[in-house]
Parts: sequence; structure tokens; C-alpha cells
Amino acid sequence: MQEFELINRYFKGRGITRRDVNLGIGDDCALVSIPENSQLAITTDTMVAGVHFFEDMSPRALGHRAIAVNLSDLAAMGAEPAWVSVALTLPKAEVEWLEEFTAGMHEIAEYFNVQIIGGDTTQGPLTVTVCAKGTVPTGKALTRGGAKPGDWIYVTGPLGDAGLAIEARKQHLDIAPEWLKKLTTKLEYPTPRVAAGQVLRGYASSAIDISDGLLADLQHILDMSLVSATIHADKIPTSEAFRQSIEGEAKWPYVLGYGDDYELLYTVPENHKAMLDNRLSQYGIEAVCIGQIRGGEGKVEVLNGEDKLDVAQVGFEHFIQGDA
Amino acid sequence: MQEFELINRYFKGRGITRRDVNLGIGDDCALVSIPENSQLAITTDTMVAGVHFFEDMSPRALGHRAIAVNLSDLAAMGAEPAWVSVALTLPKAEVEWLEEFTAGMHEIAEYFNVQIIGGDTTQGPLTVTVCAKGTVPTGKALTRGGAKPGDWIYVTGPLGDAGLAIEARKQHLDIAPEWLKKLTTKLEYPTPRVAAGQVLRGYASSAIDISDGLLADLQHILDMSLVSATIHADKIPTSEAFRQSIEGEAKWPYVLGYGDDYELLYTVPENHKAMLDNRLSQYGIEAVCIGQIRGGEGKVEVLNGEDKLDVAQVGFEHFIQGDA
Repeated sequence: MQEFELINRYFKGRGITRRDVNLGIGDDCALVSIPENSQLAITTDTMVAGVHFFEDMSPRALGHRAIAVNLSDLAAMGAEPAWVSVALTLPKAEVEWLEEFTAGMHEIAEYFNVQIIGGDTTQGPLTVTVCAKGTVPTGKALTRGGAKPGDWIYVTGPLGDAGLAIEARKQHLDIAPEWLKKLTTKLEYPTPRVAAGQVLRGYASSAIDISDGLLADLQHILDMSLVSATIHADKIPTSEAFRQSIEGEAKWPYVLGYGDDYELLYTVPENHKAMLDNRLSQYGIEAVCIGQIRGGEGKVEVLNGEDKLDVAQVGFEHFIQGDA
Repeated sequence: MQEFELINRYFKGRGITRRDVNLGIGDDCALVSIPENSQLAITTDTMVAGVHFFEDMSPRALGHRAIAVNLSDLAAMGAEPAWVSVALTLPKAEVEWLEEFTAGMHEIAEYFNVQIIGGDTTQGPLTVTVCAKGTVPTGKALTRGGAKPGDWIYVTGPLGDAGLAIEARKQHLDIAPEWLKKLTTKLEYPTPRVAAGQVLRGYASSAIDISDGLLADLQHILDMSLVSATIHADKIPTSEAFRQSIEGEAKWPYVLGYGDDYELLYTVPENHKAMLDNRLSQYGIEAVCIGQIRGGEGKVEVLNGEDKLDVAQVGFEHFIQGDA
């Protein structure tokens, strides 16, 4: 156990200090203060070695990603991230590994003004569970349940990079090193759309972060909102690295089925569309309209130009998340 | 991944519903409301199979214990438990196992009026991480840092049962089945001292839950309060099952070194002593005075009657927590 006490060194007294943290690491609990007229938003994500990330992924990237995927959930609610608890299980405490892992955590936490307020360090198979907490003005949170027929469907950025990085490695795909590096960076260092999430409040009718894949996550919105949707697959933004690395029909599984890019998917009513586009672009966010909500019972129609895309046919089923 | 969607069945729509939960399981985040003039207390504990519990421990006990150890941390701050997030990693989703595990969770959660508001279920080696949240009136939380020379040192109940249950199994100790059963129940179904923690507010000068062992946890109070202490080991309460199962010097490691009983350890100034004893006994809590805080620099003196007990000599070192 002594070696695990080492870990306190890498968390306690490191990273930023928020004024609303009344008691940080070092007691039975942390104590924080919530601003008035706010609700607390809470989310938890676990990453297991060999299941959610390659076992040899750099510890710095792992630290970044474990925080990022949780902040992405807060972003999807329009919440402002504030505090995270980190439960780290690792086979043994190696100084070098811990230095890198915690540096990755502290970097992203600092960037988003988030304080690590506690957690637990235990011995066992490498697993990281983060519980992130944020605040949102009472009644203003974005949910999955507000999309209405006629609302436009948007994504906040390019899709497919992270999924392609995963499969490039698994399937040894032939991708030029310069592009593969960009794709891998997107996988390992995703940027949660925190600013976008807060801008969406008051304009968007629903939102979710794309963690399971565009179609899977869109389905959550449709199920909670009791609507259907049409997606124009050819309008879904992709990165240059992605377009240089894969062609034709082979791209669809990544664009439609993979979720590790952590962009936001949201819907916006016609009367807020122009204003929201404008406000997001002020933040440098190039959101792209990829379809529209229709009446109906949770069905998705995917078009490629004029043609209907049969998602089962393009191999989408093989790529359903959960084994990345 | 489909099988893990099963798990939602065992959490969603089960257990209690609190009025301060504005959005429970099923969106990117849960949303909750904090009462006015309160701080939020947050704690996280991980339990890894084979490290923190025997791999064949009943899933019902595991579910209970994973919640209990977290509520114990809230209790030690004097906080009122409210919400928990559950991150469950398990090798495969077996219906029978999940039924029992979640029944264990829901039972204790219901008893303490706690709602399971979300979490994550992933595939991998059996690990449970719970992040528990509670509230405490602003400025009233109990910390480890307030003990003063002259304050009396108390525990809220008998120590040693859980530790003896662990070692009985590891070392095949010869203990009568009726007593072993009682000891094992204490290990598997600890009762967090939630009511006691709230009663302590305003009276106790410091508090901690005994999760690492009496001496180790007392040391945390001494280090944070910058004081020393004298403990009368012969005054430490033990259960009948414990006394029937072990004799003489062999008991000290369990009483002083093991922490899995989850009683509270607290200090109280002379002028609050009688009032607090009285109030706790109204709640049926038989707290026992086991020593006194002295001036000094974090030293503990352990007496057995008139004799000084050398904790190193009684084998305490072998029993330091972390491998239970």
C-alpha cells in the first residue's frame, strides 16, 4: 500500500485551485459550494485497459482522455465543468508512468478550469473511472428529449478520425504516417466541446455527445424525443487526414458508426438556427447541418446525395462501439 | 456490448426516487438540486476483486459494501447522503449475479434514502467504483483537523470483527461457525454510521471513519490537527463474537490495525462530552471513550491498563490494510 501513497504526490497540491472548493484532497470527502440558481450535473465514465484503449497507449493520453470523455458529457448538457474525482486502479505504481498520466490529467483539467478534488487509488488491472461534476443554470440544461419535427440536426466537427485510427491499428491499414498521426491524436487527445455546449443553451432543442457513434447517439435523441430523422451522410464533415486516408464506401462505418471523436450532436429549431450558427462561429466552432428531424417513431433515414444508404449494407453493424 | 445494456434494467426505474433529482439515469448527465446554505460533500471508493474483497463474496454483499464504504466517508464528514454514481466493471453480464448485486445496492441505498443517479457499466476485471454525494450545512462539516489537547477520543462501536473474519478465512483460524458467521456479516454488510455522523456536527472537534485501522486513521487526525494521543486499548469495545473467537494478545492487531468495520473515530471537547454522549445514546449509538488527545507532534501512545503496548511487537505491522 505504501507505493500507492506515492500517488497523493501526483494529485495533492497539483493542478488548479478553484475558489468554490472548500476542502480538496486529504479528508474523508471533498467539500464544494454550488452557485445559487444552479443545478449540479454529474457523469461517470470508466476506461478499462484493452477494452476502451490499447494497453500501450501513452499514460499522458490516457490521463487526458479519461477527463475529456467525462467533460464531453457535461458539455452535452450545457454544463460548466467544475470538479472531478479520479478512481485509478493500476497494477503497480511506477513513478514515470504516474508522472505522465497525471500530467495529462492536470493539463486538460487546467485548460477547462477543473479541479481534481479527490478519488481513490487501488491496486489491480489498469482501469480509470472519472466522476465529473459541473453546474448549469437551473432549468437550462440540454437533454436528449427536446427535438421536434422540423428541427435541424448539427454536429460540431469532423467525424471518423478516431475510429479510423483504431481500425488502422487493428487491421494494419495502409495510411501515410503524417495522416495516421493526426488521426491518432484525435483518438488520444479528444477535445470536449465545452464552450459549444454552453453556447447551445437557450438555442438547441436537444444535445448529446457522440461517444457511441453518430447513428447510435442520434437514436438516443429520437427515442427520448419521440421523433424520426433524415441524415445527409454526404454532408457530414470529415478531416483532411480522414479524406486522404480512406475512400468511397469504406468511410461510412467510421463516419456513421464510430464515436470516439467526442463531437456534439444537437438539434435546433428553425427560428434559432441563424443566431446559433452565428454565436458558435464567434467561438470558432464550425458546426455543420447534416439533416433534419421528422415526425415518426424513432426511425433514421440516411441519404447519400439522392440515394438511400443502407447502413447494414455498408458494414455498420460490425463497427458498433464497445470494443474500441 | 448489448449484454451490458441489460444492466440498465437493474438500475433504471429501480430503487428510490428523490425529489431533488431533476434528471436521473438515461441522459449524458444526471441533474440534481442542492439545498440552500449547504455544501456538497463528495467521496469515491473503488473495490477490486481479489484485492478489496474475496472473489467469491456474494454479489449482494458486494453491492451493499460498495455503497456502505462510501456512505461511511460521508458520515465521517457529518454529511447527509443523497446520490451515488456506480461504475461497474465486470467480466460478463450474468442475470443472476446482477439481480443480487443490484438488490444489495438498492437495499442499502433505500435504507439511507440515497438515489443511484447514474454510472457506467463496462466489460473487464470485476471492479466497483462508487462516487457518493451528500450535503452538509455550510461550515458544519466535520474534518480531521480540529482535535485539541484534552479532547476525548471515541469510537462509535466494536472494532476487529471484520478483520478477524478476513484472517479467519486466509489463515483457516479455528472459530466456531456461529461466531464466524457474525464476524463475516460485519465484514460483508457494514453499517455506515450515517446518523452518528450527523449527530456529531456541532459537538465533535474532528472525525474520520475507520477504514484503514484505528491507529492508521487516528494518525490522520493527529497529522491534520497537529496533536498527539493516548489510547487505552483495553477500553476499545469488541463484540461478543470477537471475544469468543480470539484471546489474549492475538486480538490487538485486529482491534488496532484493521479497519473494515467502518465505525467512526471522533474527538470531542470536555464541554460537549456529556451532551454528545446523551444525544448519541438517544439514537441507540453506544459510543465508547478510548483515550484522549495530548499536545505534541503526531505521536500515539497505546496503553493496556497500566502497561504500554508496543504496537510493532504485537504484530501490527503485518496487518496494515491494503490487502484485505
